[in-house]
Amino acid sequence: MVLEPAANPESVPRDLVTLITDFGTGDPYVGVMKGVMLGVAPWLRFVDITHEVGPQNIREGAFILATSWRYFPPGTVHLAVVDPGVGTERRPILLAGPEAFFVGPDNGLFGWVFGPPWEDHPEAGPRPLPEGWRAFVLNQPRFWRPDISRTFHGRDIFGPAAAHLAAGVRPEELGTPVDAVTALAWPRPVAVPGPALRGEVVYVDRFGNLVTNIPAKLVSPSARVEVAGRTIRGLSRTYAEAKGPAAVINSFGLLEVAVPRGSAAAALKAGPGTPVTVREAGGA
Amino acid sequence: MVLEPAANPESVPRDLVTLITDFGTGDPYVGVMKGVMLGVAPWLRFVDITHEVGPQNIREGAFILATSWRYFPPGTVHLAVVDPGVGTERRPILLAGPEAFFVGPDNGLFGWVFGPPWEDHPEAGPRPLPEGWRAFVLNQPRFWRPDISRTFHGRDIFGPAAAHLAAGVRPEELGTPVDAVTALAWPRPVAVPGPALRGEVVYVDRFGNLVTNIPAKLVSPSARVEVAGRTIRGLSRTYAEAKGPAAVINSFGLLEVAVPRGSAAAALKAGPGTPVTVREAGGA
Amino acid sequence: MVLEPAANPESVPRDLVTLITDFGTGDPYVGVMKGVMLGVAPWLRFVDITHEVGPQNIREGAFILATSWRYFPPGTVHLAVVDPGVGTERRPILLAGPEAFFVGPDNGLFGWVFGPPWEDHPEAGPRPLPEGWRAFVLNQPRFWRPDISRTFHGRDIFGPAAAHLAAGVRPEELGTPVDAVTALAWPRPVAVPGPALRGEVVYVDRFGNLVTNIPAKLVSPSARVEVAGRTIRGLSRTYAEAKGPAAVINSFGLLEVAVPRGSAAAALKAGPGTPVTVREAGGA
Repeated sequence: MVLEPAANPESVPRDLVTLITDFGTGDPYVGVMKGVMLGVAPWLRFVDITHEVGPQNIREGAFILATSWRYFPPGTVHLAVVDPGVGTERRPILLAGPEAFFVGPDNGLFGWVFGPPWEDHPEAGPRPLPEGWRAFVLNQPRFWRPDISRTFHGRDIFGPAAAHLAAGVRPEELGTPVDAVTALAWPRPVAVPGPALRGEVVYVDRFGNLVTNIPAKLVSPSARVEVAGRTIRGLSRTYAEAKGPAAVINSFGLLEVAVPRGSAAAALKAGPGTPVTVREAGGA
Repeated sequence: MVLEPAANPESVPRDLVTLITDFGTGDPYVGVMKGVMLGVAPWLRFVDITHEVGPQNIREGAFILATSWRYFPPGTVHLAVVDPGVGTERRPILLAGPEAFFVGPDNGLFGWVFGPPWEDHPEAGPRPLPEGWRAFVLNQPRFWRPDISRTFHGRDIFGPAAAHLAAGVRPEELGTPVDAVTALAWPRPVAVPGPALRGEVVYVDRFGNLVTNIPAKLVSPSARVEVAGRTIRGLSRTYAEAKGPAAVINSFGLLEVAVPRGSAAAALKAGPGTPVTVREAGGA
Repeated sequence: MVLEPAANPESVPRDLVTLITDFGTGDPYVGVMKGVMLGVAPWLRFVDITHEVGPQNIREGAFILATSWRYFPPGTVHLAVVDPGVGTERRPILLAGPEAFFVGPDNGLFGWVFGPPWEDHPEAGPRPLPEGWRAFVLNQPRFWRPDISRTFHGRDIFGPAAAHLAAGVRPEELGTPVDAVTALAWPRPVAVPGPALRGEVVYVDRFGNLVTNIPAKLVSPSARVEVAGRTIRGLSRTYAEAKGPAAVINSFGLLEVAVPRGSAAAALKAGPGTPVTVREAGGA
């Protein structure tokens, strides 16, 4: 079914679709998914957020989605496919918020989008929808490809559903309302004797910067940051001003450990899950 | 020469160009090729299928093109440049089918696009065009860049030709008709004693899934699949339901060996060329 | 501030923005930067030249920009962010040339865009602007994001400034004029006894081709090229015609050492900085 923009007068046609997958960029999978979407809504424009989520790493995909979607214009459709359970019972969903739409498997990818997870600390399991949000199980095959494989729902279900949504099909036409989406547990920092705060590395970027789960408001400029046997005294304001491993507040508003012109992950042999402890300067 | 859409009233201006190359994404080559095309037809939109074809691996490029182009809307221009013979006698061609156009070097890249190669089993050498298809040797330099390098025809010949085609120049203006394109041999599965069918791995994707040359219709759900010293009994319907190495029918309709949440390529030390044997359950 | 095209009648709205960064494609940084720009100018179209510049490798980014920007249509906005000094005193700039615009940190990224650096041999330091060029320090926060991080000016300053420029804001509204931009020293080839010319490898591409700083006009077809202990006698016209390591004139017009269907970088254990000597055939 190819729609013209505004085929449905009650809806707003959209043209921007972002993509987050673990498909990589070497195989034809991403291109194929885009081709299918353009067959539904030829005017679509895509922004690839990333296709390099670790294979089947839902947690990483959820973090990337949670930290990026707010930077896009209202009405953007965010298509996220990290889907180890493809072809099984996990539900395909559409999540419609006041400012954006989300399409993909309901396996935890979308559980961290309501607020920054370092503020609302999601727990594992079904998460009720905040006011202003709606969710729908995608169960209307007329908006899918005619033949549904058991191994590539990005091409057969999610992509076509996202394209029809962008084309102006109303969310309630695409599926049946549900009142919760699946969340993964956010690793909330905990108080430990000292007193101190213990968190952990939740993401490592290309530069080897160690992004933690500790938000800026819990760290004073003079705090001591302990990670991988090293103690960093006080926060640096920029990457450049520090000499060795440095603690900075990053662009998400999270505590981050960086090595200027080097990789903190390599230098400290640290990665996701590595404990990070913050002690205020007056502490023991 | 910059054209407006529909400059040529006998043709349909097009706006969608896909790209398959072995250029990688680290060097400026892909961007430069797009820049040159946008100079010819500023309204073009690109979908990168992949730029990570193994360097000079025509076979891999041909497989990716053959498995992806049908998912794009009619009229799409597919630009494929894997070109170890750049600057030599190999012909630059335009292939015009009933549903799509193809531009690139005539070195085998386009020999598998007429039907899925696992159905029509192309042989190596010149392949006559099926009904409804036309091919042209690109030999009209007025549609190229003024200075032609000997090392980058993607920028100097193929990109500009594709852009002019998209801009509405008729295929017959771009070159001289020819009646065949070059094909590589498709490795057709063969019957072996048992009775059994012996095929091979033809592609490995990012997940380490081993895609074989054996189409779904030649494998029953209870078949035994032998690969790299392992025997897999029966097909799995999804990646998730299997425990160890599993055989599935993939989204192309080919037999594939996968390790759920792992890499079959790594676990089985297998890759392109690894033999795969299928025995029906009642066989010896 | 969201602008409509041509909101400013004295300017030409633009729609094409290229990107060169060292952000990689695994993290959400590039997507976030594009999202922010689309919030300012929803009609923008992006061409990713590369996001795989070596982390903090300004020299590599400058080379890629210098060799690619001329292939884009007039009026293109080139956004380049390789920014180890983010958050420090290095100036954010806009460079406006007769044919293109450039936005990013004034740390050397833009010092090689006036002419091919292998023709005008830039020296390190401030470089006066050629006739027809203007530069501006970006110092008008009303065209930035409201909250400026100290670690991600691509998102907070450069992206928004580039988008406002594309939206028709005049360069002089975005900042204060300056009369020079920072350049890195181009490694000019030098005459050595022999007589011979000594240059060096300045870039290695995906194919392992060794791009040198020696322009075509300084090499005759019969020259001997010495690199990493090997001597190559005479230039090859194409990659394919050579057997072992070959010297060719590449698509930038520079001497390049290649190994057909292999990697010269790997075969010769060479990389950026490796000396390359050219002797004319009649020489000692």
